[in-house]
Amino acid sequence: MDRPPVWVMRQAGRYLPEYRAVREKAGDFLTMCHTPEIAADVTLQPIRRFGLDAAIVFSDILTPLAPMGVDLTFSPAPQISNPVRAPEDLDRLEIPDPWKGTEYLSETLERVRSELDDDTALIGFCGAPWTLASYLVEGVTSKAFTQVKSFAHHHPECFDRLLDTLADSMAAYLRTQVESGAQAVQIFDSWFGALSLEDARRWALRPARRLLEATNDLGVPRIYFANGGGHLLEELAGMPYEVMGLDWRVDLQRAGKILPHHALQGNLDPGVLMGPDDEIRRRTMAMLEKAPRRGYIANLGHGITPDVPVRAMEVFVGTVQGYRYE
Amino acid sequence: MDRPPVWVMRQAGRYLPEYRAVREKAGDFLTMCHTPEIAADVTLQPIRRFGLDAAIVFSDILTPLAPMGVDLTFSPAPQISNPVRAPEDLDRLEIPDPWKGTEYLSETLERVRSELDDDTALIGFCGAPWTLASYLVEGVTSKAFTQVKSFAHHHPECFDRLLDTLADSMAAYLRTQVESGAQAVQIFDSWFGALSLEDARRWALRPARRLLEATNDLGVPRIYFANGGGHLLEELAGMPYEVMGLDWRVDLQRAGKILPHHALQGNLDPGVLMGPDDEIRRRTMAMLEKAPRRGYIANLGHGITPDVPVRAMEVFVGTVQGYRYE
Repeated sequence: MDRPPVWVMRQAGRYLPEYRAVREKAGDFLTMCHTPEIAADVTLQPIRRFGLDAAIVFSDILTPLAPMGVDLTFSPAPQISNPVRAPEDLDRLEIPDPWKGTEYLSETLERVRSELDDDTALIGFCGAPWTLASYLVEGVTSKAFTQVKSFAHHHPECFDRLLDTLADSMAAYLRTQVESGAQAVQIFDSWFGALSLEDARRWALRPARRLLEATNDLGVPRIYFANGGGHLLEELAGMPYEVMGLDWRVDLQRAGKILPHHALQGNLDPGVLMGPDDEIRRRTMAMLEKAPRRGYIANLGHGITPDVPVRAMEVFVGTVQGYRYE
Repeated sequence: MDRPPVWVMRQAGRYLPEYRAVREKAGDFLTMCHTPEIAADVTLQPIRRFGLDAAIVFSDILTPLAPMGVDLTFSPAPQISNPVRAPEDLDRLEIPDPWKGTEYLSETLERVRSELDDDTALIGFCGAPWTLASYLVEGVTSKAFTQVKSFAHHHPECFDRLLDTLADSMAAYLRTQVESGAQAVQIFDSWFGALSLEDARRWALRPARRLLEATNDLGVPRIYFANGGGHLLEELAGMPYEVMGLDWRVDLQRAGKILPHHALQGNLDPGVLMGPDDEIRRRTMAMLEKAPRRGYIANLGHGITPDVPVRAMEVFVGTVQGYRYE
């Protein structure tokens, strides 16, 4: 391909009328995830509409916590009714070994793979250990992360064990996804940016490395998306993944210099898709011109938001699809 | 002083039982701000308890929007019932010239100054233009900033004018604070981290520079706190302020190298104050050892959270107060 491939985080989402129609019928988000027929259909919606180069399986980073005994609901924000608040709460977590409990996702991946043409990649994903641990302790989407930091500071060895457990189980979870047809995987460290340098090293980078090392033999590219990690690119450069997912605050040119041996993915501000067509085109072109000439995947720097007009997504994707490397 | 001075963002806040007692009696946050007797008392509470080196006047960055005709309530999150959503909404904004409408704050500053001893500085503050504009357009504390970015992309010249207006009015507002006894001012760019590089230059740095240049003659140190700007330290280094306020994600040593001609302020993770005493001491000492030897103010890297135990604040402040430069 003489242009960068393009896909978009949360491309199967509420900004699409056909998604909203399915969601209204299904009733709730978890039902959609757990029903392979629905999840596969929704995964394919943006592929049909925009001809994207990759489909990312419809799911949520928190769904694999359920097989561990975590009581998870979405209404619509995620909520865990039995969060980890004390060391003894860790004993409640039952990690399936070998991994099981997400067969619905395997079936979704198989369905999607069988419907995709050979030129379209299928991406699986999971949450990174720090981000999952944050949800496990906070119980909700946190703003200040004081509960999880309290736990980690008071019970550091115990928190390390929790992170290791999550790294190992997510490695097993990604393995089932690759076995079911995922040709690349993305690891979402959505809350990386909540951590100071010292904490990022111990609570995010160390367990993410464990997860990455346990998936070295999967034979598929691994995209690590450390959201809010732009100030730590040098440290992130030393990790064993193939693709660095960049949020919209990072200067793509600078990232290319700091990570010359990694492929890069990103990183248009999703907020640009709220603008007029000309501005979307101009910003997308500016991103493409800044991106490395090889090993680059065009994408937004975060998930597309529900209020983005479909037309804006068309302009963004169309601009990348019309671009040609000189 | 042979140690760094110390104060804490949001030091007059809900983590203090004496603050909660006053708040319960006063009923609501805006009443507290608008009643100089109460606001002065609350401002002084943490000084009495911890012997801090600076008092920051009790207020909120949004209160000076009210004299411009903005209908603002706190319940407890801020809400603007008449947000700016279209260019014509700007005509509604009435900027007092000369500045007036915040006489309650002037009186609070005078009261506090008369009660503080000479060794304790009094700090005034305001919001930076980008952060205030975000609130003005979004109407609430936003997560994705899609409304304000939509406005800015669709009406760029109009948005620049809004930012200029906010810069000029905040400069006038800071002037009244200095005239009433503020000996330093902090400019809070709380949402700086929501912006890509290009947008940060036009929507945050440019109007913040305008505000700073309009306050050059005030003769007091100006602290610019660009929260989430750790990836743009090089650009921030070129701005005309005296003190760079650093959030907890920035490596203090790196900041010292990039900004050798500025004083630095910060930057302990407020989440550390959720930990045990020994950890608070260790992290505070590590920060002090990394900080530049001159031109440094010890502080947290963000506001202290309501769930921090008073004891933790004592340990943090006590560690700085017991520190001595070699």
